[in-house]
Amino acid sequence: MFQAFEAPADPSIGAGRTRQLRALLSELKIDAFLVPRADEHQGEYVPKSAERLGWLTGFTGSAGSAVVARKHAALFVDGRYTVQSRAQVDTSVFEILQLPQHTPGDWLIAKLGTGATVGFDPWLHTIAGIERLAEQLAPRRITLKPVARNPIDRIWGRARPAVPAAPVRVQALARAGKSAEDKIAELQAKLKVDEQDAVVLTLPDSIAWLFNIRGADIAHNPVVLAFAIVRVQGKAELFIAPAKLDKEVKAHLGAVARLFEPKDLQDRIGALRQAKCRVRLDPETAAWWLARRLGDAKRIRRGADPCILPKARKNAAEIAGARAAHLRDGAAMVRFLAWLDREAGEGGLDEITAVEELERCRVATGALREISFDTISGSGPNGAIVHYRVNAKTNRRLAHGELFLIDSGGQYADGTTDVTRTVAIGTPSAEMRERFTLVLKGHIAIATARFPMGTRGVDLDPFARRALWSRGLDFDHGTGHGVGSYLSVHEGPQSISRRGKAELHPGMIVSNEPGYYKEGAYGIRIENLALVTEATAIKGGDRPMMGFETLTLVPIDRRLVDSSLLGDAETQWLNAYHARVLREIGPALGDADRAWLAQACAPVF
Amino acid sequence: MFQAFEAPADPSIGAGRTRQLRALLSELKIDAFLVPRADEHQGEYVPKSAERLGWLTGFTGSAGSAVVARKHAALFVDGRYTVQSRAQVDTSVFEILQLPQHTPGDWLIAKLGTGATVGFDPWLHTIAGIERLAEQLAPRRITLKPVARNPIDRIWGRARPAVPAAPVRVQALARAGKSAEDKIAELQAKLKVDEQDAVVLTLPDSIAWLFNIRGADIAHNPVVLAFAIVRVQGKAELFIAPAKLDKEVKAHLGAVARLFEPKDLQDRIGALRQAKCRVRLDPETAAWWLARRLGDAKRIRRGADPCILPKARKNAAEIAGARAAHLRDGAAMVRFLAWLDREAGEGGLDEITAVEELERCRVATGALREISFDTISGSGPNGAIVHYRVNAKTNRRLAHGELFLIDSGGQYADGTTDVTRTVAIGTPSAEMRERFTLVLKGHIAIATARFPMGTRGVDLDPFARRALWSRGLDFDHGTGHGVGSYLSVHEGPQSISRRGKAELHPGMIVSNEPGYYKEGAYGIRIENLALVTEATAIKGGDRPMMGFETLTLVPIDRRLVDSSLLGDAETQWLNAYHARVLREIGPALGDADRAWLAQACAPVF
Repeated sequence: MFQAFEAPADPSIGAGRTRQLRALLSELKIDAFLVPRADEHQGEYVPKSAERLGWLTGFTGSAGSAVVARKHAALFVDGRYTVQSRAQVDTSVFEILQLPQHTPGDWLIAKLGTGATVGFDPWLHTIAGIERLAEQLAPRRITLKPVARNPIDRIWGRARPAVPAAPVRVQALARAGKSAEDKIAELQAKLKVDEQDAVVLTLPDSIAWLFNIRGADIAHNPVVLAFAIVRVQGKAELFIAPAKLDKEVKAHLGAVARLFEPKDLQDRIGALRQAKCRVRLDPETAAWWLARRLGDAKRIRRGADPCILPKARKNAAEIAGARAAHLRDGAAMVRFLAWLDREAGEGGLDEITAVEELERCRVATGALREISFDTISGSGPNGAIVHYRVNAKTNRRLAHGELFLIDSGGQYADGTTDVTRTVAIGTPSAEMRERFTLVLKGHIAIATARFPMGTRGVDLDPFARRALWSRGLDFDHGTGHGVGSYLSVHEGPQSISRRGKAELHPGMIVSNEPGYYKEGAYGIRIENLALVTEATAIKGGDRPMMGFETLTLVPIDRRLVDSSLLGDAETQWLNAYHARVLREIGPALGDADRAWLAQACAPVF
Repeated sequence: MFQAFEAPADPSIGAGRTRQLRALLSELKIDAFLVPRADEHQGEYVPKSAERLGWLTGFTGSAGSAVVARKHAALFVDGRYTVQSRAQVDTSVFEILQLPQHTPGDWLIAKLGTGATVGFDPWLHTIAGIERLAEQLAPRRITLKPVARNPIDRIWGRARPAVPAAPVRVQALARAGKSAEDKIAELQAKLKVDEQDAVVLTLPDSIAWLFNIRGADIAHNPVVLAFAIVRVQGKAELFIAPAKLDKEVKAHLGAVARLFEPKDLQDRIGALRQAKCRVRLDPETAAWWLARRLGDAKRIRRGADPCILPKARKNAAEIAGARAAHLRDGAAMVRFLAWLDREAGEGGLDEITAVEELERCRVATGALREISFDTISGSGPNGAIVHYRVNAKTNRRLAHGELFLIDSGGQYADGTTDVTRTVAIGTPSAEMRERFTLVLKGHIAIATARFPMGTRGVDLDPFARRALWSRGLDFDHGTGHGVGSYLSVHEGPQSISRRGKAELHPGMIVSNEPGYYKEGAYGIRIENLALVTEATAIKGGDRPMMGFETLTLVPIDRRLVDSSLLGDAETQWLNAYHARVLREIGPALGDADRAWLAQACAPVF
């Protein structure tokens, strides 16, 4: 299994570990220490060796940070994690505060006196993050001090998991669609235009994309933990543990890069400094340590990681791969849904057995490398917890009259999938059908939108909400995120959300996943991935318009659709989508599953 | 007439005046001088005495700026004004460049050498504007130098129009809904919370709103040119030319403010400095001179003008006033449209006669104080020029088979109106009807939207475009702007547009004006003003939702509606709107106009 179901640790761990950390504060001459959930690469997920926040507090969410002062300590989490953190953390040790209403900076000002010193690990915070905090603290003369060796690592000691060293494999050119050599040459051309001598790359998925490699250092994300320096000309420099590389990979990388051990990064950054290079750094993702090591701020060129945009715009090979991956994954999902429909009536299923069966269906494709993320498998009220992860303690039966929400994905060599379906177990209530149909209307409004070049995600997000808003309903998450090509299932720069300022470009893949959540009762989400298409002329129109090609091919539960709420164009979309699913997925199935699919894809009227 | 139709000045003025200005550059020891279209208050419109940009270049648009260097000169205008500026300006003297692709900063870097000095009038630029420019020029060691006496004023000399000194009148409490005393007390409470000792107010409409006064210093905008300092306690200080004040107004103002002459501002700012006050200044609207005069940057508190938000949220009296103004203005518009329908058939009308008749209809209400802006009266291809202003040279007949677009408004003591209607002269083409109906669909989508607290204008703007986008069409302006209460017809902070980051609040008034423009052929715009309503519960919903109450009551030309393109809910909206117009406006009309209105408001099917 790619997913485990053990219940999280006992909150009681927090008290002793915090006491040990406090004992080091005076030795380090600091009044407080910052503990973010981050590693040196600032990816969305971190390896177990970097789960310092979890080790200290017990909190296992994917975002948050703690501050430990001499007498007080606090954990900052966003709205998704307030309930979970209260269950996982000793609240007599850690005050739990919600971001963004409360911030570590405010808390430090409130708890520390003028002139206090706050320690931080210079590898675990971004340049911009430290600058913003320093600016906030400056009026109170509270200063930030980098601490060379993370005190948590000293306490954690031998119990700390090893730094990962999973084998790297080459992403074949046929799948990547462009050679590492060409990608690097294009990056170098961009550096030249931007009058920069070099760029330091720190994001794991940028490096995996640029060098056409994949790894397994982090669960569910086939990235490789490494650093890179690309100068405006010549070979790149790649800082990667040799243990991860076999002969074939070494040859592949050696053709475009000089290989160094990670510990050599310090010297090579020093060389950039000595050569007075103008070095591009992404202040929002690069570790503060790098800016410090580069020294002269005048020679640092602040700019977004230059891999982010080309990585997001999939080329023809990546698009072909995505389509193939979705066909394969769609067939696995259909087999799973057919199984669910057969078995759920017996009453013997629960959230964990569903996750296990779904993974079996994906493994049976013979092509699954990993799952894209821990499957969200929520029955009844658990479906209303947006970031729910089932464990042995929370596991619930799939009971009649309830909704079951399952959000999952597969990592295949040709593409990453992410799909959510909400299924009626037994007979749904009229309210469930109404809400499901409103969510579906939002989903269709995104799927069918046409929009001009320059449109940003923020400009599409309202389409997903209008039908819900009109009935006094809404959902508290974005409508969609970018998705990688056999890479991170959450990939920027684009998103369809209130904060989606990045423009959409042809070739980008985004999720379309509006939802509705009734706390304590049920959750609904309908998620497909979609490809942003080229802008094409529309007959009679003045301006070419982009649009979406839906990639995901899995039926939407017709039993939950109240077709009286759909307009003609919406009904047509749903029926056309189901006809396409049957046509494209049906041939891959056995007779029983195909028969199930045929009735699941029957038209609604 | 509140509007004139003379053709703009001859472009030939630019050469001589630029030569005179250049002669002063060496005396001032500067290599270039900045000439913005701005006065000391940074309002949207400026008095004739501040039209330095127009005097120098001939350009009469409402936004832009020029830079004159020793050998080169450039005029920067946005996309609305590129065509107009080419006609008005001597392009052998001024290179015309389009904002935001080209900026004065880029141009200065390209034209001036390292170490050059650029002069500016410290009263005519905002703090943030000068800071941004200085930052851009710093790497080239180009410095900015404030010039005490604007060299243009020296050349302009006696020909320069006098600084306006129009009489001020009190805005009655019954209309303002809150006394100046109470508004000032609330402002002082805000300063206290924000730990500020004083605020300097510079925006003319903020001052008019705060002190409940109106004036006529600027055409169409009933504001008063003045400055104010409000300390956290005690009487406000108001800097205003005594000639503007009669006995009644003096008594009204004297109750809440100490009155100073404008020239005393320098001393009173000096007093704030000496008293080491923490002074709030809006860097985006306050003149750079003020920050300089206040001296110590540490004591300047940067923050938005604190009148902007309360001014935008209309109180019950202002809302009642807006409704009354729209009833009155709607009747005037209906009389005008009825006249237009009767007369246009004869073929004797043109754009100017239409403007004149519309103003007569508004004047006939007996309540018109001013028009809200120069009426946009565009027949045929002139309708496609978004910011068209008719003059004797451009005037066009209203011809059969064409569309006529008229965008206008009235300033009444109880409210400001702004309405656009597009009317078919003779028989419209199928394409005109299709495009008009698509624009109408966008208009209805805004009018009928429900949305939660926290929604910003940017979140609604796409609703106005979806139908157009789906057919390969769009329009290149925002969907709506805020509107004042017998104040500026363009009022912040809210707007419905790509840039509309301000949250909408109940009581705000916004325009809803999607359009479509076919260059060289016709323009379409449908504009109503709408009030943001309180968030109210929706039966069966979880969350209260805001919405819009349409204020404007003028029929939408049914001859241009292709009802086969409307959904049922859209048809219902249009018919209900027309039924309301007939019910509310009909009783104010004579028999002939009422009969015309009845047929104009007949249902579509």
